[in-house]
Amino acid sequence: MPRYKCIISYDGSGFSGYQVQPNKRTVQSVLEAALTKMHKGVAVKVSASGRTDADVHAKGQVIHFDSCLHIPEDRWVIALNSLLPEDISVLSAVAVDESFHARFDAKGKEYRYMIHLSSKRDPFQRKFVYQYPYPLNLQAMEQASVFFLGTHDFTSFCAAKTEVEDKVRTIKTIDFTLENDLLTIRFVGNGFLYNMVRILVGTLLEIGSGDRSPEDIPIILAHRDRRLSGKTAPGHGLYLWEVFYQ
Amino acid sequence: MPRYKCIISYDGSGFSGYQVQPNKRTVQSVLEAALTKMHKGVAVKVSASGRTDADVHAKGQVIHFDSCLHIPEDRWVIALNSLLPEDISVLSAVAVDESFHARFDAKGKEYRYMIHLSSKRDPFQRKFVYQYPYPLNLQAMEQASVFFLGTHDFTSFCAAKTEVEDKVRTIKTIDFTLENDLLTIRFVGNGFLYNMVRILVGTLLEIGSGDRSPEDIPIILAHRDRRLSGKTAPGHGLYLWEVFYQ
Repeated sequence: MPRYKCIISYDGSGFSGYQVQPNKRTVQSVLEAALTKMHKGVAVKVSASGRTDADVHAKGQVIHFDSCLHIPEDRWVIALNSLLPEDISVLSAVAVDESFHARFDAKGKEYRYMIHLSSKRDPFQRKFVYQYPYPLNLQAMEQASVFFLGTHDFTSFCAAKTEVEDKVRTIKTIDFTLENDLLTIRFVGNGFLYNMVRILVGTLLEIGSGDRSPEDIPIILAHRDRRLSGKTAPGHGLYLWEVFYQ
Repeated sequence: MPRYKCIISYDGSGFSGYQVQPNKRTVQSVLEAALTKMHKGVAVKVSASGRTDADVHAKGQVIHFDSCLHIPEDRWVIALNSLLPEDISVLSAVAVDESFHARFDAKGKEYRYMIHLSSKRDPFQRKFVYQYPYPLNLQAMEQASVFFLGTHDFTSFCAAKTEVEDKVRTIKTIDFTLENDLLTIRFVGNGFLYNMVRILVGTLLEIGSGDRSPEDIPIILAHRDRRLSGKTAPGHGLYLWEVFYQ
């Protein structure tokens, strides 16, 4: 049965995260409902590159599914979007080898975290950027971020309930872009643990506000203890930006 | 009793327009509820520079109200925002002469209409820009817009049910900015009739798509008949951007 890979985008504010949960509106359940409708009631299972939490957005989430329907690639996009609600969109669809797997074949990911540095509330941005009204020392944040680069055990920077055993990950890039009062922090790595980007951001904000110093980072990493790192930054500032494959 | 002038911004998607209506969530009712709470239950009436329809946004709507409370100007912003929901924000508050009136003293307004020129749905923009998937001849639209400049009777370009008698208005500026696939049409004038900007945009889109020619505009203006102009463009692409006073 042919397999299809799709790049999708969604506004996370209306979803209880990616993964199916009973009686909740999730990205996966909405996708599977649209596909099942296209397949006249035959259930279609969707696999994603990874989960996203409630309120977390996606610009380039990747999914795959198998289908017996004979539809040209460009028609998949139109057909699926016509059945999907407006807060989710299929950007592309391509036929792939049946061995392709959105999660297991992912070689890396890019996340972006958006922070609105302002004391003034912006009604248009409230679900799409995290508003931070206090002064930030960007230089200290950049200094701190260098300690995260490379391969480390990120036990201190993932949710305590993270189930995977191996918490070693490699971060290739962390960069900061300030455009007017919008700060974007970009993270590129081979993979990220549960809540990892949000805890990295929460910790960087505590450094930027002067509550911690950049030199604390190697110590926190070495202790492998979630209680030593910063707060988990809110989900609505986070975007799964791109998923990389071979 | 001192009078205050406030500039406010709101995401129109959650409101049934500006004006109070029974059993509807409107901008005015939300503002008056917050002010009445501040005044311990004493009703406070808010006057705006003009109404906005359901889904229409505001970046710089202007309101005024009278208050017996002795609060410094900068504290008004904080106090009101703490009582207002997140889709509306007070940007500034100043004490004004008691003769000031947000509507009667307005000398002009700027509206902007945002059009996303793309066949791809953007989940993040669906409530904030009008998605238009067909090709547009921008040059024809700019040619047509010149016919609207200056002082005209805009009977053909307002809702048929418009109640004001005098439908003569002066448009000073119409300009087009294309940034990537976002087309912004900016309108500056001494005042705009009910649905006027949306009908101007709807007509310009019919010219851009080749269904009409720019030279139709003077004829439509001369006939003073709403049935001759184009469709009313959707509310969610429209922003009341600024209100001008002496």
